[in-house]
Amino acid sequence: MLKLHGFAVSNYFNMVKLALLEKGLPFEIVTVHGGQTPEFLAISPRGKVPVLQTEQGFINETSAILEYLEERGEGRALLPSEPYARARVRALMKEIELYLELPARSCYPEAFFGGKVDEFTKAKAKAELLAGVAALKRHATFGPYVAGEQFSLADLYFLYSVDLASIVAKKVFDFDLLAELPAAKALFALLNQNPHVQQIAADKEAGMAAFIASVKARG
Amino acid sequence: MLKLHGFAVSNYFNMVKLALLEKGLPFEIVTVHGGQTPEFLAISPRGKVPVLQTEQGFINETSAILEYLEERGEGRALLPSEPYARARVRALMKEIELYLELPARSCYPEAFFGGKVDEFTKAKAKAELLAGVAALKRHATFGPYVAGEQFSLADLYFLYSVDLASIVAKKVFDFDLLAELPAAKALFALLNQNPHVQQIAADKEAGMAAFIASVKARG
Repeated sequence: MLKLHGFAVSNYFNMVKLALLEKGLPFEIVTVHGGQTPEFLAISPRGKVPVLQTEQGFINETSAILEYLEERGEGRALLPSEPYARARVRALMKEIELYLELPARSCYPEAFFGGKVDEFTKAKAKAELLAGVAALKRHATFGPYVAGEQFSLADLYFLYSVDLASIVAKKVFDFDLLAELPAAKALFALLNQNPHVQQIAADKEAGMAAFIASVKARG
Repeated sequence: MLKLHGFAVSNYFNMVKLALLEKGLPFEIVTVHGGQTPEFLAISPRGKVPVLQTEQGFINETSAILEYLEERGEGRALLPSEPYARARVRALMKEIELYLELPARSCYPEAFFGGKVDEFTKAKAKAELLAGVAALKRHATFGPYVAGEQFSLADLYFLYSVDLASIVAKKVFDFDLLAELPAAKALFALLNQNPHVQQIAADKEAGMAAFIASVKARG
């Protein structure tokens, strides 16, 4: 059986978990926070979660795991069948990751963990978040899903990265990232009605206190 | 005919250009530096190059373009056929991008454009480059190619990102990024014998002076 290694607060872990649940594939969870131990680096070369354990070995990097699950061909497809439409979904995934997730992530210490982020990093992150959300507005359909009528891999990135980027924008910079994207807010509301999304949110809530404590302990 | 929009100094542009050349696909180049004009944002939502113009429309984001070219099924395949092997190539591509290219990129102003990068950014970039190259050492095969015996999409990322990361490590931090990876140095030597790689290097050299001037003019 497939085993998903990671922890319930990790947004990338939750992308893969939702893909598995939406596909209806059986899987087990192995709870691990990642890190630089020799044992974990042997299954994830940069020490990151999630990692998918398959019959053939381990796969790291969320985007590689998600593509692999599509290629297994089991359960519901989360990419369109036509190459140009698939390319558009993949571009949207990458835009959300590079232009919203990554700049927001640079401010997580201040947004979530009681730390301070230097002003250089914050100024860069703010400018990138504004440019990133403008790109999303240009490219996404929200009809109602990110890439159109069908739920796709782009919605996984939207759900679990744009929410964090919005929190960073509000807490660190005091602006509403989605102020000019009411359709994105409507998509969050729609996705949050999904029972699998609700299950993942409950699992995240249950794991949050221990995770925050572990991050603060690491300093 | 496919049209590749971008410019000869862009490393991501050159990844796609080499893929097209290795596949033997006919294509035209449209030289453009990217940017935030309404005209360019209409074809590339974040204003980045490269963009591939197809019969059906434009595709942005290098990884999405490269996957699309594989799915067209024309010319030489640059991904293995088996899903687990494909996942490993994709993980290597992503590791090079996230853990070597991106930290190196944060120091490009100092390495290439006569600027200064703040100390917070530099300290973070140096730590990430060291962890990134350790991950590459753990995961790559160099047998002789990044993922094994076959030239793959991972070699495109290696060739056009790890070279820049090595220059940043040397010029900004005065260390040899590949000191413990002689097989990676051997792969650079092998790839640089490829006539398409040589053509791209010559095109880059020819476009470099104008590019440097344009970056400095922008401030």
